[in-house]
Amino acid sequence: MKKAGILGGGQLGRMLLQTAINYPVETFVLENDPDCPSAHLCHHFILGDIQDFETVYAFGKELNVLTIEIESVNVEALEKLEAEGVKVIPSPAALRIIQNKITQKKFYTQHQIPTAPFLVTEKKADLEQHTDFLPAVHKLASGGYDGKGVQIIENRDQLSLGFEGAAVLEKMIPVELEISVIVAVDTKGAIVTYPPAAMVFDPQLNLLDYQIAPAPITSTLAQQADAIARQVAMAFQSPGLFAVELLADQSGKVWVNETAPRVHNSGHHSIEGNMCSQFDMLWRILLEYPLGSTEALCTTVLVNILGSEGAAGAVLYKGLENVLATPNAYLHLYGKQLTKPGRKMGHITYCGNNVQDLIEKAELGKKQLKVVAK
Amino acid sequence: MKKAGILGGGQLGRMLLQTAINYPVETFVLENDPDCPSAHLCHHFILGDIQDFETVYAFGKELNVLTIEIESVNVEALEKLEAEGVKVIPSPAALRIIQNKITQKKFYTQHQIPTAPFLVTEKKADLEQHTDFLPAVHKLASGGYDGKGVQIIENRDQLSLGFEGAAVLEKMIPVELEISVIVAVDTKGAIVTYPPAAMVFDPQLNLLDYQIAPAPITSTLAQQADAIARQVAMAFQSPGLFAVELLADQSGKVWVNETAPRVHNSGHHSIEGNMCSQFDMLWRILLEYPLGSTEALCTTVLVNILGSEGAAGAVLYKGLENVLATPNAYLHLYGKQLTKPGRKMGHITYCGNNVQDLIEKAELGKKQLKVVAK
Repeated sequence: MKKAGILGGGQLGRMLLQTAINYPVETFVLENDPDCPSAHLCHHFILGDIQDFETVYAFGKELNVLTIEIESVNVEALEKLEAEGVKVIPSPAALRIIQNKITQKKFYTQHQIPTAPFLVTEKKADLEQHTDFLPAVHKLASGGYDGKGVQIIENRDQLSLGFEGAAVLEKMIPVELEISVIVAVDTKGAIVTYPPAAMVFDPQLNLLDYQIAPAPITSTLAQQADAIARQVAMAFQSPGLFAVELLADQSGKVWVNETAPRVHNSGHHSIEGNMCSQFDMLWRILLEYPLGSTEALCTTVLVNILGSEGAAGAVLYKGLENVLATPNAYLHLYGKQLTKPGRKMGHITYCGNNVQDLIEKAELGKKQLKVVAK
Repeated sequence: MKKAGILGGGQLGRMLLQTAINYPVETFVLENDPDCPSAHLCHHFILGDIQDFETVYAFGKELNVLTIEIESVNVEALEKLEAEGVKVIPSPAALRIIQNKITQKKFYTQHQIPTAPFLVTEKKADLEQHTDFLPAVHKLASGGYDGKGVQIIENRDQLSLGFEGAAVLEKMIPVELEISVIVAVDTKGAIVTYPPAAMVFDPQLNLLDYQIAPAPITSTLAQQADAIARQVAMAFQSPGLFAVELLADQSGKVWVNETAPRVHNSGHHSIEGNMCSQFDMLWRILLEYPLGSTEALCTTVLVNILGSEGAAGAVLYKGLENVLATPNAYLHLYGKQLTKPGRKMGHITYCGNNVQDLIEKAELGKKQLKVVAK
C-alpha cells in the first residue's frame, strides 16, 4: 500500500482524506494545529510546520508520494525529496513559480498566456511612478490568502493603501465574469478538464456569493476558457490538479488571473456534480490510476458557509435543520472548532436542473444557516 | 457538538465515518481490532470488546447517542445506557429481538408479518422429528453471520448437517427473487423507504453475484415489498435504519427473511444512487435532523469485492486500474489489511441508465479485479 502525505490539514486535506477512504493508501498529514480539520481522518498525523525545511523533509522522506493543500510550504524540502525519488505532485518547480505572484505573472507572459498587464513594485513608494497605470490591483508577491494581500487602487489618492513588500501592480480589467477551470494532469501527461464554473460576487461586499457549475456561458467562451486552462496546466509541465482562475472581460476575451496547483474551492461542487470529484481525481493522479470522468451529472449552485461578522469563538451552527430539509442540498462542514468573521466553515451544494431554482434555494440556504459563536 | 459512538469498526462503521465528516459530530468507535477499517477515521478509537457489558457501558456513558454496525453487541449494557438517558439507536429492545433468530421469527408471526413457517430446535437430534417439514433451512439462533450458521437441509439424509445449538428450522420457500428494502425511522417516528434492491445470486455458488437498484420489478411487487418493510420497521417501534430482507416467491407473494437494524450491504449503492445515502440517512436520525430524500438518481448495479478462494494473508488488489478506467464505476475499498476467501474487501457500484449495460460492466469488473494475498 502506498504511503501518501499531505502538507496542510485544512478543509481541502479533510475532503481529500474523505475520498482516500475508497482507495488502498496509507495517509499522512503534516500540520501545526492538532485540532485541524484533517487531524483525526488520516492514518498518521504529524504535528509540525509545513514551512520548515527539516520538518517537511523528515515528514516526506519515507513516503511514496507527497501533495499539498496549501501553497505556503517549504519548497526547498520538496525539491530535495523529489531529487531523492519521492514523487511530489505538483512538482516543486511549478509550486515555486506559483508561490510568488511576480514569478507567476512573468511565467504567463513568457508562455504567451493572456494575463492582465502588470508591473513589479518593491515598496509602496514605487507606486508613485505608476499613477498612469491606475486603476490597478496591487497584489503582494507572497503571503496573500483568501483576499488578503490584494488591494484595489483606483487613483493616486489611494496609493497609501498599497503594500510595502514586493508586489505586482496589475492593470484593472473590466471583468464581466470570473470563471474557474480545473485541469487534471496525470504522471504520464494525460489531461482532462472539468466544465468551467462561474463565480458570482456580491456587488456590495465583493465576496463570492455563489458559484454555478457548469457555468451558464456560451460554448465559445467555455471553449476559450478550457483552452487557456489547458495551456496553463501544460506550461507547468507537472502532474497534478490545477485550478485556473480566469477573468472574462466585456468583449468576451479571457485572461488568467491566477492558478492554484491543488484542489480548490471552485471545484467542491464536483463531489456531487461530476462523475469523478476533484478529490477523487487527485488521488488517481497521486496513486497513478487512470484519470476519471469529468462529465457533469447535474447543474450545481454552491455557497460557502462563512463565519458571521462580529462572531468569534467556539462555533455554533444555527438552522442546519432547514438546510437539511431541502432534498437537493448537500451539506459539507469542515470541522473547524473556532469561527471568525468570513472564515470558511463549510459549503452547501445544491444540485438539480433548473439553475434559477437552485440559485433561489442557495439564497434561501444562506439566510437559513447562521454560523455564530457560542 | 454531539458525541456519537459506533459499536464495531468494520466497513459499515468506516462508511458511516466517511459521511460523518460532513456533520458537526464528535465520533467514537469501540472495536477490539486496532487495525480495523474504522480505527483511523474517528475522533476517538477505543480498543475493547463490544460484547462485554462493562466495556460497552464505559464506552457509552459519556456519549449523547450510540449506534451499532453489527448486531452482536452487549445489549444489557445498551439497556442500562438507555435507561440512564443515552440515546441508543436502534433501541436495545429491537436489537434484542433481532439478535436471536427465534425471537425474531416469533416477532414477525406475532405482528402478522408474512414470514416462512418455522419450528424451533434446541439440538441437532430434534431435527429427526421434523423430517416431514423438509426441505427447510436450519439457522442458528445466534452467532451466524454472512452465510455462516445457515444450512439448507433438503432431506433426512442431510439431517447431520444441522446445528447443535438453539436454531430455527424454516420451511423452504420457492424463492423467485430476493429483495431488500431499507427503511429509515427518525426519533419522531417519521418514516421513509428506499426503492427496493434486487439480489442476483450465482446459481452455482449461492453467493451474491450482483445487486440491482432500483430493482427491475413490477410496481405491484415493489409496493408490496415497501409496505411489508414499513410494517416491519414500525413494529419494532424504534428509530433507526432497518434493512428488511424479503423473499418473493413464484406466485408474487413477499415474505420477510430477516431484518438488520443498521446500515447494510444491500444499501451501499445509495452512496451514488440516491439523493441521500443510507449512511447520511443514519446520521440524520442519530443527530435528529430531518430525514433525507431516498429518490433514486440512476440505476445501479453493485458487486462486492471478495477475497479470492485459496488466498489468505496481506491483501493485494490486482487490476484496480481496469476498474478505475470505467467512467461510471465507483470503487469503495474497506481498508482491510488481511484477505481471506470470501471476505468482503470492498464493493464497486456501476451507475447509469441501461441495466443490461451495467450488468455487463459489473461482470467484466469482477473478472478484471482480483483480490489476492501478497
